[in-house]
Amino acid sequence: MATQFDPPSGTRDLLAAEVEQRERAFDVIRSVFTRYGFEPLQTPAFERLDVLLGKYGEDADKLVFKILRRGEHEASGEADLALRYDHTVPLARVAAAYGSRLPSPYKRYALGPVWRAERPGRDRYREFVQCDLDTLGSASPLADAEVLCAHHDAVAELGIGDFRVLLNSRRVLAGLLDAFGVPAGLGAGVLITLDKLDKLSPAAVIAELGQRGLDPDKAGELADAMTAPDAVGRIRDALKQSEEGSAGLDEVDEVLALVSPQFPPGRIAFTPRLVRGLSYYTGPIWEVTAPGVAGSLGGGGRYDHLIEQLGGPDVPATGTSLGIERILTLLPGGEAQPSRLDVAVTVMGAEFAARSFGFAAAARAAGLRASVYLGSSGKLGRQLRWASDQGARWCLIYGSAEDEAGTVTVRDMLSGEQTAVPAGDLGGYLAQAAGSGRGDDRR
Amino acid sequence: MATQFDPPSGTRDLLAAEVEQRERAFDVIRSVFTRYGFEPLQTPAFERLDVLLGKYGEDADKLVFKILRRGEHEASGEADLALRYDHTVPLARVAAAYGSRLPSPYKRYALGPVWRAERPGRDRYREFVQCDLDTLGSASPLADAEVLCAHHDAVAELGIGDFRVLLNSRRVLAGLLDAFGVPAGLGAGVLITLDKLDKLSPAAVIAELGQRGLDPDKAGELADAMTAPDAVGRIRDALKQSEEGSAGLDEVDEVLALVSPQFPPGRIAFTPRLVRGLSYYTGPIWEVTAPGVAGSLGGGGRYDHLIEQLGGPDVPATGTSLGIERILTLLPGGEAQPSRLDVAVTVMGAEFAARSFGFAAAARAAGLRASVYLGSSGKLGRQLRWASDQGARWCLIYGSAEDEAGTVTVRDMLSGEQTAVPAGDLGGYLAQAAGSGRGDDRR
Repeated sequence: MATQFDPPSGTRDLLAAEVEQRERAFDVIRSVFTRYGFEPLQTPAFERLDVLLGKYGEDADKLVFKILRRGEHEASGEADLALRYDHTVPLARVAAAYGSRLPSPYKRYALGPVWRAERPGRDRYREFVQCDLDTLGSASPLADAEVLCAHHDAVAELGIGDFRVLLNSRRVLAGLLDAFGVPAGLGAGVLITLDKLDKLSPAAVIAELGQRGLDPDKAGELADAMTAPDAVGRIRDALKQSEEGSAGLDEVDEVLALVSPQFPPGRIAFTPRLVRGLSYYTGPIWEVTAPGVAGSLGGGGRYDHLIEQLGGPDVPATGTSLGIERILTLLPGGEAQPSRLDVAVTVMGAEFAARSFGFAAAARAAGLRASVYLGSSGKLGRQLRWASDQGARWCLIYGSAEDEAGTVTVRDMLSGEQTAVPAGDLGGYLAQAAGSGRGDDRR
Repeated sequence: MATQFDPPSGTRDLLAAEVEQRERAFDVIRSVFTRYGFEPLQTPAFERLDVLLGKYGEDADKLVFKILRRGEHEASGEADLALRYDHTVPLARVAAAYGSRLPSPYKRYALGPVWRAERPGRDRYREFVQCDLDTLGSASPLADAEVLCAHHDAVAELGIGDFRVLLNSRRVLAGLLDAFGVPAGLGAGVLITLDKLDKLSPAAVIAELGQRGLDPDKAGELADAMTAPDAVGRIRDALKQSEEGSAGLDEVDEVLALVSPQFPPGRIAFTPRLVRGLSYYTGPIWEVTAPGVAGSLGGGGRYDHLIEQLGGPDVPATGTSLGIERILTLLPGGEAQPSRLDVAVTVMGAEFAARSFGFAAAARAAGLRASVYLGSSGKLGRQLRWASDQGARWCLIYGSAEDEAGTVTVRDMLSGEQTAVPAGDLGGYLAQAAGSGRGDDRR
């Protein structure tokens, strides 16, 4: 039901509860990445058009939001800038711009929105946050293991209890084609079909392999080997027949040896069918999945020549990308009615406004969230309802009686109990009340 | 020296030290605003073009970054979206879209980039962060005082020690024109000139007032009254002759009565010459200035009809905007060579890689930032240099000797002292070492 006040198609207005939930998640992610020694990089929302176009393929280029030239050039209808489509092309540009002034290896994370003009749909937005973790300049499997572990730890610390890491290697896939005698020309298509073994029946996969021109016997053999109860063992045996396959297996086993001791048992598994669509991977690849979640919670792998192809230096590279938006849908939501205040301060007439304002300041100085009543009603009942709507733990009342007595009335909004507190002691009183038995329900 | 790898004109790549400095500042601001009971709102980076255009005036419309239509419509050269130019128009749209589903009053902050195609210059960017704090739906001076205090506290908590708050009211300005008999048609121009009294000499201001068509005697009287040693007293007296002026004075005094007790002495002053260019203000206005800073650290005021003009509901409103980019230039910079790691873990050969990887994990589990060496050198000296470059406090060494002994060597990078720690006790050892006398220099 689009109205003229809706945000643009595929984008969202994020109100308090959502912003807070997202920021909490981002804090967790940043903290995990920092613990691994990764540092933040922030690039502009837009890049020069020539930096972006031609890097993602023709279809993707159509999804780039292009920015019209300005001033006298606007009438040309031409674009010269475009909104960031991912964090990888900007990383390549920064690596080219800074060169040896960056640490080596350069371990950076990027956490921020990217924009793609995809057809909007359920959980598919045109503005969404991507969270990337990459190490440039290390060919060591330790670098692969490190980004993979950091990805894992972030998902775990976000509170996703049940998830799996699928591990494979591009070289395993090459070895597989080799070992099963798949003609070189069919390789890419065969891999795309094999990747569907988690969704399609073996028969359907065999049929599709046939359509791609693979000999039916070979197709059957391959699908059999990949789906047998002892599939991984059979694939391992087959791979040993191929030089590339053996090298791929070694790569997988090296990463497994590094990360398995850090993970709960059964968390990670060698998964020979895992392809990950992107053609630029050159070594280990992985994907994080969770039961009941269509698609993945992100993934990554080694991509040793991409940075150069994107205009950067020729450095080995490995990285991973967290599917933040999907992870956020799995997390418990914010409170429906978030508590906005700890202390709500009534204003019982203009003559007491300055005192009430000061009490709110005293509560803040005690570390509490506090505000005065900003409405126009002078009625206590109405103001108490406001205090309750704010989720306030205490409500302060200061009128003529309190003014004469030199006290302020502190109402406990849970018990309804009211205490007369000497005005000068308010900060200390609230700090103490907040300290005792209140810590658990504060945000 | 623009190269093809520079970010687009007027934008910046923010590397680790800058990102971290900015994020620390944003955390402080968010924390202050939250304490005042303001809640976050995040709107998309772009809005529909018709939502933005015609809201800021013709000159500003030229500075809007417009986004080309996509797909088959791209060839039209037309734009349908535009990058956010400020946070106020999106706020008006959200207020219109959500109506009574928003809290009332709606106290929200927005902290995020906006984009303006201004000519880039020193400290003037085309992508910069704006931080806005607004209360919709309250006509109370308490609401003005609250946003002003929150602005003040944010600047103070960011560590800016020396700054001033200038306070005035639109109604004082109207009363001033009234009291000094300035013809209605000249009012706006006269105010613009008076606002220059902080930069120009009284004579220059009198001359400019004359050029604007103001009677020279009146111009002299006005400039005299505004610059005399007892200027504020004389202006106060003059204002009392005008109904609008008296009302404006009351407004100023109400806000002063609320906020002065919360501020250090001399922090805020009634400043009759303060105009603030934006014509939409309707009540109290203020500006935060710091010595040696050209321009201001932000400011704001009451703008009771703007939200309606921008397409939102007709609600009273007041708000303030922090000049974040300028404040950031005043803060002490990040460390030139930031410490990336607490614990650097050497890798003394592939056969010990998994153990080293596990030690890094143990250090992280103890809450420390840790990483293994990802380079290709097997030499200890080289790896110790890396550890030192990372600013690491400890370096772990695990080779054949340690493997045999079942220990890991913990090298204190400050003293050079080395301790053999049983491998299983590493986490506890590091946690204890970090706890004792290390807390002070961790970030």
